[in-house]
Amino acid sequence: MFKKLVSGVHNTTRFYSGVSPKIKSRKYVLTKYFQGEPKKSDFQLVEEEIPELKDGEILTEAEYLSVDPYMRAYMIGYKLPTDMIGGQVAKIIASRNNEYPVGKYVCGSFGWRTHTVINPVQRTTGLLPLTLLPDISPYPISIALGILGMPGNTAYFGLKEICQPKPGETIVITGAAGAVGSHVGQIGKLMGCRVVGFAGTDEKCKYLEQELGFDRAFNYKTVDIKSALKEGAPKRVDCYFDNVGGEISSTIINYMNKYGRVAVCGSISSYNDAKLPKVTILQPAVVLKELKMEGFLVNRWTDRWDEGINANLIWLREGKLKYQEKIYYGFDNMVEALVGILRGENTGKAVVKVN
Amino acid sequence: MFKKLVSGVHNTTRFYSGVSPKIKSRKYVLTKYFQGEPKKSDFQLVEEEIPELKDGEILTEAEYLSVDPYMRAYMIGYKLPTDMIGGQVAKIIASRNNEYPVGKYVCGSFGWRTHTVINPVQRTTGLLPLTLLPDISPYPISIALGILGMPGNTAYFGLKEICQPKPGETIVITGAAGAVGSHVGQIGKLMGCRVVGFAGTDEKCKYLEQELGFDRAFNYKTVDIKSALKEGAPKRVDCYFDNVGGEISSTIINYMNKYGRVAVCGSISSYNDAKLPKVTILQPAVVLKELKMEGFLVNRWTDRWDEGINANLIWLREGKLKYQEKIYYGFDNMVEALVGILRGENTGKAVVKVN
Repeated sequence: MFKKLVSGVHNTTRFYSGVSPKIKSRKYVLTKYFQGEPKKSDFQLVEEEIPELKDGEILTEAEYLSVDPYMRAYMIGYKLPTDMIGGQVAKIIASRNNEYPVGKYVCGSFGWRTHTVINPVQRTTGLLPLTLLPDISPYPISIALGILGMPGNTAYFGLKEICQPKPGETIVITGAAGAVGSHVGQIGKLMGCRVVGFAGTDEKCKYLEQELGFDRAFNYKTVDIKSALKEGAPKRVDCYFDNVGGEISSTIINYMNKYGRVAVCGSISSYNDAKLPKVTILQPAVVLKELKMEGFLVNRWTDRWDEGINANLIWLREGKLKYQEKIYYGFDNMVEALVGILRGENTGKAVVKVN
Repeated sequence: MFKKLVSGVHNTTRFYSGVSPKIKSRKYVLTKYFQGEPKKSDFQLVEEEIPELKDGEILTEAEYLSVDPYMRAYMIGYKLPTDMIGGQVAKIIASRNNEYPVGKYVCGSFGWRTHTVINPVQRTTGLLPLTLLPDISPYPISIALGILGMPGNTAYFGLKEICQPKPGETIVITGAAGAVGSHVGQIGKLMGCRVVGFAGTDEKCKYLEQELGFDRAFNYKTVDIKSALKEGAPKRVDCYFDNVGGEISSTIINYMNKYGRVAVCGSISSYNDAKLPKVTILQPAVVLKELKMEGFLVNRWTDRWDEGINANLIWLREGKLKYQEKIYYGFDNMVEALVGILRGENTGKAVVKVN
């Protein structure tokens, strides 16, 4: 449904049409590695001239920027200073590429910046292939960063390919009210599984059970995890979709059935820690139960990107998938938004509306 | 090469020939769950009458009993009192089964007992299929409990199927001087990999490097693990064969390459602990490196048992595999032997010569 990066590049007369030559791009440059929670002082806000478009290039203006937990974890892999990474939905405001006309929207890993000049043929770095957004009305374009984007495909492929759940099995999800977790649970129900979620507030749990159809959801901050598992997963756990790491994951993994599968999608509980924490050892359970545990990044399925997007869009249109968005406002508030999701402020996908 | 359990059962006139009717079987019955190191007082030594053989049955007398780390971990899964589990090589001393004549040897999961009446058609419990031993001269029959038995197949299938090493990759092994670890390393070298082992004495390390061809071996009790990895595995770690669990495993797993594979074979470092210990969390590395970690018990390859035995026997006869045995003596010393291997007394496979 989403049009993937194609190779045809054409001249166009729409070059720079309607764009003020005085426009400048603003971007976040990371100048200090995060310590604990990200801080505004870890970044420099930089203004850049926008270069003239070359043949085949487009100029985009960001409408929604994504904030995701992985941003906290990944920057350690970059040499500083470096442009901040991330996905965005952006409007094409100038184009020298007929396949990407002005007025259309693209989704790409352009980072935390307001304006981007790019040749769509050029492979972007980061998790997202550059895609031209089709008409997804009546849904807002922002969901191309959520249920119809990277988190949606993370849920779709991670659950199907790593957990490989069978009907009747029990799936447990941590970070269950987040963009990925809430989506995983709904796909789990569509696949005929019992779905149990752990989230951080009673309100989130109520949403998971009453709106999204989770069989049970527990507030991990107030329950005893083992007791919750006994109650919520009476046949123990076949699939565990791990978004958080930490001690709760050890407890769940030690409560799994023979040949259980663990999809390790994230480890948000330790992203802010300077030193990796210690948790109860996994190996005895992994051996005795012959568990399989696999970490994954969604870009391993770049070749099958459209499959996930289309499956999710069909379920969405059929009313089988629901979503919720937490919208932060203003390009200047990117750091607050990132800190917010690391604190668990969001239910569903968090995005920043740039203007 | 080893003859697997077959269905043909025949009358035989050799029934009870040459066996004193006064012979009794002795066995270990576990009456208390282990706490810390196994103790003699956790068992009762019980004498049993040997029943008359029925058609198809054989009577065996144990010559070698196996002691393996898994014995410390598994008994928690049994209701007490229960016969102690384990493999043995035993001589057929009476037979009503033509395919299993007196004088031949079998290998089976008969437990810690001197005499066993069994119909070979009957599936035995435990890790080992019942096998009739072929002529493996000039090698001692005890190696049917080691390099040509359960540990040999654990090494063969665990490395090939779970780690799936490619030539030029680096394999790290903990418990490297044990029955399984020392075998894994040699297969790793045969597969064209760099092999690095961790063991518990300088003597073991010398043996691994000088006799078995490990590229490097380190005494985990005296080195800094991270420094040893930097030195021994300059291209980091692609495959980790984990026999021990514990903090050393966290350090190794955090030093792996993208798409690394971890075969979790055992967790001997925590078997004696009353409570599962805490170790550095694995999830951040598992996600970022997209690692695959899988626990296994060797009996999942029962259908391919002969493949492993034959491959190891061929390598052995070609001089490509070496082994070492630690022999304890006396049926009364089973507990001392088990404690011994849990303390790391053995290099290679430990067995108990019954008489």
